[in-house]
This record gives sequence, structure tokens and C-alpha cells, in this order.
Amino acid sequence: MTSNTFLDPFVSPQSVALIGVSSRTGPGTFNVLERMLAGGYKGKIYPVNPRGSSIMGVKAYQSLTDIDEPVDLAVISTPRTAVPGIVRQCVEKGISSVIIITQGFSDAGDEDGMHMHHEIVNIIRGTGTRVIGPNTLGVINAFINFNTSFVPFNTRTIPVGLICQSGIFLAASQDFSGGIGIGIDIGNACDVGFTESMEYLAGRDDIRVINLHLEGLHNGRRFLAAARRITPHKPVLVLKTGSSEAGARAASSHSGSLAGEDAVFSAAFAQSGIIRVEDSARLAELNQTFLTYREMRGKRIGFITISGGAGIMAVDACSKYDLVAARLSDQTIKALEVVFPNWMNVGNPADIWPAGMAKGYGKITALALDKVLADDNVDAVVCITPAYLDPDTDPLNTIDVINDTAARFPHKPTAVWVFGPHKEKYAEQFRAAQVAVAYGSPDSALYCLAKLYRYHNFIRGKQYTGCAAPPGINRTAAGAAIDTGLNKRLTVLNEQALDVVEAYGIPVVRRALAQSPEQALELAGGLGYPVALKVASPDITHKSDAGGVILNILSDSELSSAYDKIIQNVQAHRPGARIEGVLLQAQVTGGTEVILGGRQDPQFGAVLVFGLGGIYTELVRDVTFRVAPVTPEEALEMIKETRSFKILSGARGQLPGDIDGLVDCIVRMGTLLCEHPEIVEVDINPLLVKPDGCLALDARIIPAYRE
Amino acid sequence: MTSNTFLDPFVSPQSVALIGVSSRTGPGTFNVLERMLAGGYKGKIYPVNPRGSSIMGVKAYQSLTDIDEPVDLAVISTPRTAVPGIVRQCVEKGISSVIIITQGFSDAGDEDGMHMHHEIVNIIRGTGTRVIGPNTLGVINAFINFNTSFVPFNTRTIPVGLICQSGIFLAASQDFSGGIGIGIDIGNACDVGFTESMEYLAGRDDIRVINLHLEGLHNGRRFLAAARRITPHKPVLVLKTGSSEAGARAASSHSGSLAGEDAVFSAAFAQSGIIRVEDSARLAELNQTFLTYREMRGKRIGFITISGGAGIMAVDACSKYDLVAARLSDQTIKALEVVFPNWMNVGNPADIWPAGMAKGYGKITALALDKVLADDNVDAVVCITPAYLDPDTDPLNTIDVINDTAARFPHKPTAVWVFGPHKEKYAEQFRAAQVAVAYGSPDSALYCLAKLYRYHNFIRGKQYTGCAAPPGINRTAAGAAIDTGLNKRLTVLNEQALDVVEAYGIPVVRRALAQSPEQALELAGGLGYPVALKVASPDITHKSDAGGVILNILSDSELSSAYDKIIQNVQAHRPGARIEGVLLQAQVTGGTEVILGGRQDPQFGAVLVFGLGGIYTELVRDVTFRVAPVTPEEALEMIKETRSFKILSGARGQLPGDIDGLVDCIVRMGTLLCEHPEIVEVDINPLLVKPDGCLALDARIIPAYRE
Repeated sequence: MTSNTFLDPFVSPQSVALIGVSSRTGPGTFNVLERMLAGGYKGKIYPVNPRGSSIMGVKAYQSLTDIDEPVDLAVISTPRTAVPGIVRQCVEKGISSVIIITQGFSDAGDEDGMHMHHEIVNIIRGTGTRVIGPNTLGVINAFINFNTSFVPFNTRTIPVGLICQSGIFLAASQDFSGGIGIGIDIGNACDVGFTESMEYLAGRDDIRVINLHLEGLHNGRRFLAAARRITPHKPVLVLKTGSSEAGARAASSHSGSLAGEDAVFSAAFAQSGIIRVEDSARLAELNQTFLTYREMRGKRIGFITISGGAGIMAVDACSKYDLVAARLSDQTIKALEVVFPNWMNVGNPADIWPAGMAKGYGKITALALDKVLADDNVDAVVCITPAYLDPDTDPLNTIDVINDTAARFPHKPTAVWVFGPHKEKYAEQFRAAQVAVAYGSPDSALYCLAKLYRYHNFIRGKQYTGCAAPPGINRTAAGAAIDTGLNKRLTVLNEQALDVVEAYGIPVVRRALAQSPEQALELAGGLGYPVALKVASPDITHKSDAGGVILNILSDSELSSAYDKIIQNVQAHRPGARIEGVLLQAQVTGGTEVILGGRQDPQFGAVLVFGLGGIYTELVRDVTFRVAPVTPEEALEMIKETRSFKILSGARGQLPGDIDGLVDCIVRMGTLLCEHPEIVEVDINPLLVKPDGCLALDARIIPAYRE
Repeated sequence: MTSNTFLDPFVSPQSVALIGVSSRTGPGTFNVLERMLAGGYKGKIYPVNPRGSSIMGVKAYQSLTDIDEPVDLAVISTPRTAVPGIVRQCVEKGISSVIIITQGFSDAGDEDGMHMHHEIVNIIRGTGTRVIGPNTLGVINAFINFNTSFVPFNTRTIPVGLICQSGIFLAASQDFSGGIGIGIDIGNACDVGFTESMEYLAGRDDIRVINLHLEGLHNGRRFLAAARRITPHKPVLVLKTGSSEAGARAASSHSGSLAGEDAVFSAAFAQSGIIRVEDSARLAELNQTFLTYREMRGKRIGFITISGGAGIMAVDACSKYDLVAARLSDQTIKALEVVFPNWMNVGNPADIWPAGMAKGYGKITALALDKVLADDNVDAVVCITPAYLDPDTDPLNTIDVINDTAARFPHKPTAVWVFGPHKEKYAEQFRAAQVAVAYGSPDSALYCLAKLYRYHNFIRGKQYTGCAAPPGINRTAAGAAIDTGLNKRLTVLNEQALDVVEAYGIPVVRRALAQSPEQALELAGGLGYPVALKVASPDITHKSDAGGVILNILSDSELSSAYDKIIQNVQAHRPGARIEGVLLQAQVTGGTEVILGGRQDPQFGAVLVFGLGGIYTELVRDVTFRVAPVTPEEALEMIKETRSFKILSGARGQLPGDIDGLVDCIVRMGTLLCEHPEIVEVDINPLLVKPDGCLALDARIIPAYRE
């Protein structure tokens, strides 16, 4: 796959200038030069310090311009006010790669910081010089012992590339990711961001798994497109933080208040095959999982356990993470029954302790693991085994037995939970063999297998080719309807919203505007009774509250009096309100009420919302999201993700709704949102899903007035 | 508090007979005697082995009867067929305490096992001899190095008492509970069970926290009553396993299918103050939490962090576990602003790194922790601090600083997350000081604080004094209505169900049975239009399907034709069905539909269900459970736990419902269930909650036919 290479000098520099390095060294001084030397970096280092002379035996330069030799990378850790000037020097000297460690720019609370941020952006614009930071620990390349961080850094080297927005993920990479190969802290990301860094790591052969720590994005669409290209070839695990602060956004419609930022991120991750990690404590085991197992073809788990109680815990976790306990074949059961005591029920979990005690624990483990892995009904195995004694002397040591057996089934992960006082040593030996992962708990093992399964299930046979706009869109009519609303300076478009979605090919209830009782009678003749009446007025947003809605009108006489009644109600409730007439609508019943809409997200642009409609929408929050546009396959996935899918597909004695029609509506709504960024929010609520088709009964659009 | 003492000889025996001990020793032989000697137990040991002589230098006896001295405890690990005979010998010899390690009784799949189980129960009945097991690792008392388990056992001694149903929790107690003081594996629990063991541990001064591993209970009510007495004095943490296998229970009503076993356990735990642990990997940290912190008065958390990114993660976790980030007082902010750089926004989390780097990290940590703990808006603090170097040489070592400051605020927990390569050493030093707990991740810290808060919030000022039955119950009428249904051999009671709940004081819609169109007209005059008609027939369960329901009848003429129509429909649909007449019901609209019901649970008896009603009940599953009876306070808690509470209390422009009336209905339903164990399941669905009261519109009762 293609890859950018401009990050090479950041990650593998031949020579580094360290600007702002202090002459004080030792614990508590956080000296970058000291750390870099301690790490064992073999390239050239040029410390820059106003006093010159030398630091820790390395010649120091009074200024950047004094360095005669070529500099691949400049690392700046001066006080913040000096930073823009030094960046300018870098540009003038032709240094293409700059890391700014210093804090206090867009991260600060003051105007000066923001001002200097823009100054730096302007200095490098168009020069070819690129910046990582400010407010960063910089870059770690553990393969060449290169580290720009000022903290004492000590971690396992593994083929994992990590991109983060906070230095903690480099400084504590052993705790979070369980080690690191290459780490890039993009900090405030004034220039280099997630997308370019991710593409760079995707192109490196020494990186097999990518980790992201993400607080927010500047350009969600670019990120999403890159992720779609990368994930089929390399797993991307993301830890999204800051999710709890999302609720604050003001919103004026259902879709708006439902689509919190966090849900949109989850949708984008789901669409692009990125694996979301809910708990940072599990990232390290997930990395081990993706580095160790090459595949997982289904979700049926076999369990081999020394303890019945532990087996039950593992089955609980299996169900918690939406995997299933495998139903072993008769053949497997028979093979196990031969070696198990007569009085035992053999099943899954296979409790091997009584058999193991009688006939040798290692032998029975090997036999059971082999039979269960060979079973066509099994996609992965969890093996629970103890670590009471040192592995060298433990008669219950099953490390070789498990590795030898598991290695013969490379397409079926064998996960291990080892417990007991010596578990760390066992885990280390499993790690070294790279066949099976030893997890910290049964819960972790199943959590990680579930993520592995979902990743492979996502990428299997998938090739994203983009979305074509569906046929039959009347863009002229849609534009005219929006303009009508905008010209009236409406904050919320109602009647026009129905016209807009209809122009995009979504079926809308039959309706007509009457400007007199007589015209209403004539129009009702065309629509047929029963009809509903709603006042049409640019001044009234909540029609029911103003007495502006009357339903279930069955005859001409009822219609005439209802028309007058609405006009009277509205005039009493809102004297002076402009009344454009009364909207007649064919009254439709039956079907399931869903909500379909979307909004413009500041990070991802057009975002679709779909879910249960009607008065329970906000209470139940049975909704799902996607970044628009979506393919019909993605639209169908959305429908299937909701709990309401059961009702839509005909549960509780209902007739099944028109799912194909609903898919089409979702696709069209996505197209509408993408083609009309001036639609800030749009809802169809309810959209009736009936056996013979869908029908929008009510809609609203919140337009933007940026001209 | 009172305590039983009969378990003393099990836990602190002066002398132990080991029956079935082998003469083979060394790794892989699982010799109980060897393990007991290795542990350092100081009491008398009498091995029993048919060959006699001596084992590991201890005199062995050929049979139990050969032992002349008194025996406190017998531990049996012979083959299973020998066990009943040995238990009989124990009884004859007057040994009051027997542990049966051997497997293959009620745990086995065969008849012989079950038969021997009953044999043992019969042998000890009325003799004063008590049994732990079979199928157990027995007992551990780490305080006196006593251990009946055959596995090499190595764990930290902490004042935690553990009761389990699977030996894995003793064998892996270091992994699960982080150590142990006393452990009792009740195994198959043929005699001694959870309740007695829990009461015993509650009475021991050397046990400060109780842990339960629970798969199921024989008598849930006895357990619940004991837990209610114990939890105010001693925290009880429970790991409930086997939850995923619950779904299989057949059920024939909403309440039945909604109240899965696991939800009932959760309800019982919530009612008695037992703390449920969702993930076994967190039990050890929870024990540390409850052993270390004596109180937590509120849910407002202050954060002091060396890393902004880690602070955000901690705030995320705070929100995830329903705690809140504290709003620091102006005074606290000002005190911090003095030492922080000018450009920083000071807030919560307090990111102390820039200030710490400039002015000394330890000093700033002490100052910030002191100010934040002293803030009246703060109930607990999470402190995030690194462990890059060995604590002895690390200038960033804040162990003493944190302990000294935290110790001055004993009512406000200070939780720590230490990260970096030396974190284990730091955690060990924190553990030794017993002031602050060092957690494995920010997520863990907040998870544990949330459990701590909820426990103290539950026990604060609470004294459970039981439930009195509410006044105004017409038990005669209720009994008569049930009998009517039973005499008709109905599998589902409908009309009678409304009579029953009405007799218990729950308001029911006005209704009357008409046996002719003329009588219907007369009754409608009394009820007033609109009315609904429903066929009354013991042979028809699904009335709508049979055309037996017509709604919204507005006049005498509509009523007459509807009456005839219903009779025709039913006769056509179910020729020969007995028709007792047609039920007229006043048609009521408005209000919020809830479901109120319950069922008899095999473990806990009468269980209440309350939640959102109508067609969305099963889809939305916005329901909550309690073991009945409940107090009005518990009923109100149930209402508040549902998401529907928002709607009931007047969200979305609705009038608030009559919550007091609803509380009364729930209390009465609880009384009904407790007084009528022959009611297997009961539902009121919907119960309308209107501003001026509640009204049951439809109800069903599934009766038991045990005569």
C-alpha cells in the first residue's frame, strides 16, 4: 500500500539538533540529551545551548546556525516565547522536520499561546518544513533506541506503532500498550496529525498493529478515508478519550441531541474497521492478541478447564461479549468420554481435572485441546490452566503441550488463562513462543477474542468502493423548497422539509395547502378521508400547543368546522401570527414509527441517525449512527443494529415492514445531508415503516444562515 | 452482632483426621497431608490410610476408629463410594465437623452420585455432625496456616473472608481476591451453605470484608435476611457467576420473561447492600478499597494529575461509573493559581506538571492534594503520579507526600494511579502504609470508588425494619376471584386478575359483565361512553385474535351492533367456545403506560417487576426488580431506577403522574405476591399512571395447580 515518507526524518533521523537542552543532568532534571544518550541512539546529536561548551561530553552549539553539518530533525524545548524564532531558523536552515516539546500554545488558556500557535503555522506554511507538536513528548523509535522524550523511558519493544495526543501514552507505554515499536505524540497537532501519521505507520513493515489515542480530530472525513484503506491490511486499535465531555453541545432536534460526539466516533470506527478499546487497561492484551493470532473465522468458543467454576466464569464472559459457547460434535464428545470418569457429563466447558488427575494432566490437556480444536463447530479455544509451581518443576506445566497443539491449528486462536502464584513466568513463556496469549483473566480472554472476531468479520471479503447517489433525485425541487424556508427566515422548516425529503425520493404522505374552507373541501376530495389538518404559519413552531392541529377528520362537515376552529385557535393563541393556510394531510395509521435524520458534525461532516421513532425516541435511545453517505449494505447494518429491528421484521404479531424501502430511505437521507451542508439538522419523525412501503409523516430541517 | 460458632472446628481445629491420604508425596501427587505440613499448621494431624504405618513422619491410622484422641475435624478424600461409610463412622465417633473433598455426588451426571448425596444428608440429619462439601477444597485459615486443600497454595494474608462454590477461588485467591484470611469452599453444599458461613465470618473480628463467589442459592430469602443484618457492619462483595445460562427458563408472561434469574440476584443484592462485582479481575482492588477507606460521603471527585491526557481518561471513567468531577471552590482555584504558570487554566483535573517542574514536583503535589482534599465540594481525590525510577532514588516519588496529606482527611478517600516501569514497588509501598490504594488503571480507581460510595450511601442511616402489609385489603374477595379462575381450570386469569388486584387496593378501570345486548346498554348507562367491549370466555386466551375486542364505542347504537359483532366473530373463530358474556370497560386515555407485576422465583420467592408498559415493554426492557415485599421507600427507588421515570415525572410536556399512588400500587402488588404463592406470575399491563391516580386496564395471572 502507498505511504507517505516525509515522517522518516522524525522517526529515523541520522542527526538531531536539541534546542533548549540544559546543562543540568541527573534524576529530576528531565534532560532530553541525557535520555537520548542513555537510550543508546547511534545518530549524530547537536545540543544547542546559549552557553555553548559541552554537555555530558557532547559538543554544544550556542545557536542552531552554528551547526555546519546537515540536521535531519530539530527538537525544541526552550521556553515558549523563543519557539517561533527557532522554528523560523529551522526553516531558514532547511531543516525539514521539527518537534516542539514546549507547552503553552493552543493548549494554554491565554491569548499569547494561541497567537504563537498561529505564528508557527504561518512560518512553516509552504516551506516544506513539517512540525510535530507543540506540547508533545515527540517520537520514540524503539527499533533504533531513539527517543525525544525527557522522561526515563523503559518499555518492551514490540511491532506496535502508536499515535497519541498526550505524552502519557509514550511515558506509560508499558502500562497501556504493553510496549512499543514506534510512538508519535502529535500533541497540539499544529501541523502533522493523525491521518498522516497513521498512513506512515501503515507503510512500515516493522509495524504490524497500530494504536491510536485520540481526543479529537481536525478532519474526520480524511481520517475515515485513510482508515478504510489501512484496516484491511493492518489492525488499528483506538482509545478514544474525552467522551464524557461531549454532552454539552446545544442541539435543537432529536437527531442533534441524540448524536453526541462519542456516538459519531463509534460510528466512524465501525464503518472503517477500526477497533475501539473501551478500557485502557485492556490495550496491551489486545495488542498481544492481534500480534499473535492471524485469523478467527467465527464466534463459537470451546473451553478446556481445570476448574468447573472457572469454566462457568469463562462462559459468562463469552455471552457478555456476544460470542457463543460451541456445541461440540458427537465425535468430540465421544473422544473425550473415553478418557473422562464414567460419572462425568462431558460437554463444553470440558472440565478435565478428574481425568487429568487420574491419567496425567499434560496428556489429557493435549488430547482435549486437540479434539476440541479439530472440531468443525469450534472457532477458538480458551484453555484454563494453573501455575502453582515454577514452570521448570511443575508437573501441571502445560506450556509446551498447549503451544505444540495450538500451532497445528493456525486459523483457530488458542487463548489461555493461567492463574496462581507463578502466572507471570508462565505468561512470559507463552509470550516468547508467540503461539497462544496468556491473559490476565477469563474476562480479558473473551473480550480480546471478541474484538479479534469482529475485526476479521469486518475485513473478510470487504472492499469499500464508495457510494453512488441513488437515481431519481429532483435537486431543483429540493433547492427551491429550502430556499422558500430560508427566504422566510424560518429557524425550523416543516412543510418545506417534507418537500425536500420528497424531492430526494423518500415517500411522503399526500398533502395539500388550502387557503380557504372551500379549497380544503376540494382538496380533501382528492386526498380522501380521514384527513389531518395543521396550520401553516411561519410564526408558529409548536402547532399543537397553539391549537393548530386537528386529527381524524372524517367528513366534509367535520372538515369545514375544523378549518374554522384551527384559524380561531391560532388567532387566539398567537394574535398577529401570519397564517398561510391550512395543510391537509392524508391520515395514515399502522406500521412502525422510526426516526431518520442527521446533522452536520464539526469533525465528520454529514452524520446519519436512525432508530425507534415517536415519543419514546429520546427515552429509549434505540438509535444508531453512520457518517454519510452510506451504501445499502451499511444502511441495512444500521437497521439490524437497533433493538427495534425485531419489531420491524415482524415480531409481536406485526406484519414485517418494508426493509428494502427503509434501506433506500436511509441511503437517500445520507445523500441529502452530503449534498446540503447548509442543513444543520434534519429529522423525519415519524417515518412509518409499513409492509408495503415507508411514508414520512412529519419532518423538520434546521438550516444554517451563513451567506 | 450475633454469630453462629459451630464452624469454629472447621476453621480453627485443634486436631484433624485426614481420611484417604496417600503415601505418595511430591509435586503432582496432591497430597493433603504434605500441603498441611508445608503450610505450617500447628494442630494435631491424624492421617488415615488402610496400610497404616506413617506418612512423612506422621503416624498413620488404619481406620478412623483407631484414633483414641479427640478429633475436631475430619477431612475425607477417599474414592466416592467409601464416603458415606466414613461419614457414618464420624457420626458414631462424635466428630462434629466433616469436610468431604471427594467429587462425584450431586455434581456428577449419574444416579449413584445423587443417591450417595442423599445418603450423606440422611446420615448426619439430627446428629449434630455438620458437613462442608462434597466436591470442595475445604477450608483455609491463613491466620493459623491451616489449609485442607491439596493444591500448593501461596497467597497474601489479608482480613478478607471468602465463601465460594468452586475451589478455584481458594486455589487462585491471590489472583481473584488479592489474598485471603479465611476461605470456605462450600462445594456442593449438601449441608453448610452460604448463609451460615456468611454469618460466621460476620462474627469474626479478624475478618473485615466478606467475599462471596456464588453460582446459586438454595434459600434466597434466608440469605437476603442475613445479608441485611450483616452489610451495615461489614461490606459483602459478591461475584455471581453462571448468569448467562439463565435465559432458558420458560415463561408465559411479560414479567416472567423479563425477570431472568440474574436480574433477581441483582435486585436482592441491591436491597441488602451487597456489592456486586461485575468483573472478577477487579475483586482484589475492591478488597483493598474496602479495607483501606473507612468512608465516602458523596460522589464528587477531585483529580490531581501529572498528565492532562491521563486526567481526561480519569474524568471519562468518573462519568462511566456515575461519579462526578467536582467543581472546585474559588478559594481552591485561587490557591492553585498562585503556584501554577500564568498561562494555565486551573481547574479540575488539576494538571500539576508545569508547576511541579518549575517548583518541585513533591511540593506541588502536597499543596494541590491538601487544597483539593480540604475543598468542601470534594468527596474523594484521584491522584495520578509516575513511577519511572526506583522509589528510593526517584525525585518524583510522592508516596510519603500523598500518605501524609491523605491521612489528615480520613473521611475522603485518596486513590492513586501510579504508572511506569516501577509501579509494582510503588503499589507495594502504598499497600504497606494502608492510607491510599494504588490502582492498576484510572478506570479501576473510579470503578472502586463508585462501589465504595454506593455502599456507604446505602448503609448511611439505614435500618431495615421489614414491611407491614398496607391497609384496606379485601382478602376474601381476592381469594374468591382466584378460586373462580381455578375452578374454571383457566391457565390464564384475565377478568379475575382485575378483581384480585382491585381487592388488594390497586385502582382498576370500571367494568361490568353483560350477558345480553340489553344488559350491556343498561351497564353502559352507568359507565358512560366511550366504552370498550371484550368477550368473556374461559376458552379464549387471545381475545383480539378471535375478534373479541372492540374499542371506542361511542353510542347505544354502536354498542348494540358491537355486542352482536363480537359474539359472531368469536363463534366463527372458535366454534363451541363457551361465552359467558361481554365485558364492558370504561375507555380511559392519557397517562403513561407502565407494567407492574411479579412472579415466584425458585430461589427468592415472590419477586416484583416494574417498568415501562405497553407494546415496548419487551423491546425496551426498561424494567427493575425487587424481592417482595417492599417498603414505600424501596418502591420509590424502583420507580426512580427506570428511564421512564423522566416521563412519569413530567418530561416532554406531559403532566407529572401520581408517583405516590404508583408507590402504593407497587407495595400492594408486593403484598399480593407474598400472600399468594399460588400466583406463579402476575402482570398489570398497562397500568395507567395519570396525574390524578393510577388505573389498571388489563391484568393476567398464571396460577399454579398444586392441590
